[in-house]
Amino acid sequence: MDNGPMDATPTAAAFRLILLSKSNPVMGCYMFWTSLLVLKMLVMSLLTARQRMKTKTYANPEDLRLSRSTEVRFGDPNVERVRRAHRNDLENILPFLLMSLAYVASGPNPLTARLLIRIGASARLIHTVVYAIIPVPQPARALAFFTTFAITCFEAGYVLVCCIKYI
Amino acid sequence: MDNGPMDATPTAAAFRLILLSKSNPVMGCYMFWTSLLVLKMLVMSLLTARQRMKTKTYANPEDLRLSRSTEVRFGDPNVERVRRAHRNDLENILPFLLMSLAYVASGPNPLTARLLIRIGASARLIHTVVYAIIPVPQPARALAFFTTFAITCFEAGYVLVCCIKYI
Amino acid sequence: MDNGPMDATPTAAAFRLILLSKSNPVMGCYMFWTSLLVLKMLVMSLLTARQRMKTKTYANPEDLRLSRSTEVRFGDPNVERVRRAHRNDLENILPFLLMSLAYVASGPNPLTARLLIRIGASARLIHTVVYAIIPVPQPARALAFFTTFAITCFEAGYVLVCCIKYI
Repeated sequence: MDNGPMDATPTAAAFRLILLSKSNPVMGCYMFWTSLLVLKMLVMSLLTARQRMKTKTYANPEDLRLSRSTEVRFGDPNVERVRRAHRNDLENILPFLLMSLAYVASGPNPLTARLLIRIGASARLIHTVVYAIIPVPQPARALAFFTTFAITCFEAGYVLVCCIKYI
Repeated sequence: MDNGPMDATPTAAAFRLILLSKSNPVMGCYMFWTSLLVLKMLVMSLLTARQRMKTKTYANPEDLRLSRSTEVRFGDPNVERVRRAHRNDLENILPFLLMSLAYVASGPNPLTARLLIRIGASARLIHTVVYAIIPVPQPARALAFFTTFAITCFEAGYVLVCCIKYI
Repeated sequence: MDNGPMDATPTAAAFRLILLSKSNPVMGCYMFWTSLLVLKMLVMSLLTARQRMKTKTYANPEDLRLSRSTEVRFGDPNVERVRRAHRNDLENILPFLLMSLAYVASGPNPLTARLLIRIGASARLIHTVVYAIIPVPQPARALAFFTTFAITCFEAGYVLVCCIKYI
């Protein structure tokens, strides 16, 4: 008497429902692009540090002896540009990552979901290049910004409809 | 010989343990309110842009031609108020969302958990209204602030006790 | 006829694969340290408020009557130091928490993962002490900063390799 397959079938089917696991390709895609975006955000700290050293703009007295500066300084345009780009990341990448996780957990169409995650994350990589690394004229930055913005809104709308009964 | 129910029972019971899935109403509630709060945070970017256009306060040289301004400006009080509200969101909504996810994963009482998520998220919506949209006298903003603050602390305490053995 | 154990074995084995559940000690460890770091971030708001009251540096007109001040003020060095430490938390703790969640979901070696989470989180607690509470000379702050920085990078690299096929 072999009831192995009989037991295995519902379990296997049921496990496909575990959306937040790496056996779900959408979750794998989310994890890959999350890593890239997190690395990108960490690089912003290094870019800020480089600008601070280059322009000797240190915000803390205890940092001054790093370059034998004599006083703290604020508001250097090169430092502030990188800091604005970094803050823009906090305002957009972190909500995008949290929203995408809830979106993955809502079980969307795999093809659509992977496409949205790839485009949304890539647009933020481009945003950093045109904002903090090689400033280019508008609307380059605005286009990159609104691409991720629109994708995050779509994901939020999808999850709102999907979970409205749990309000 | 029908051993179907015998097999189904442990599987169904076990799947109720998958807390981070949309079959768990608490997770559904979390996903719904996460979407609302993420949308609210995105709206802050639009509010900032509106104030920048209204007061012609642009922080980047490449943005100037959007309104034929001639120089970058900083520190306009209307722009700064929206930016402070936005930063306050980063400081409070993002930790609240991460903390609530860990709280959902710790398997709390469903009624309590859904109530806390609803109140915590609603208080942040009110916070934005009384801070950035229609500034009202204190203590309106402080009350909204400390409601979510206290709920996040409670969730953290609950998870700390629940997971102390994994320290 | 007792086929209970036969059914239980694959189910139990399969459930060990649910990495984002509190039955996974790595997830329990993540949840514990997430709670501590979130509490630490909330305390930064209280530290800022204490400095604002002590130095009567209020950024909003509606807050003035709290201490019978007559005008808004900005740029007090004690307030700004706590605010810089808080912003540094946003830039590093939130990516660390999101990255660690993806890392836990990628099924790393449990001993390594728990060690990285403990060290990464503890370094951020030390960072706050040496930055905002008792300012000490460098390189104390830099060491604490780069510890978590390096761990987050390692986790990102691990997940990138693990999920490269889902790019």
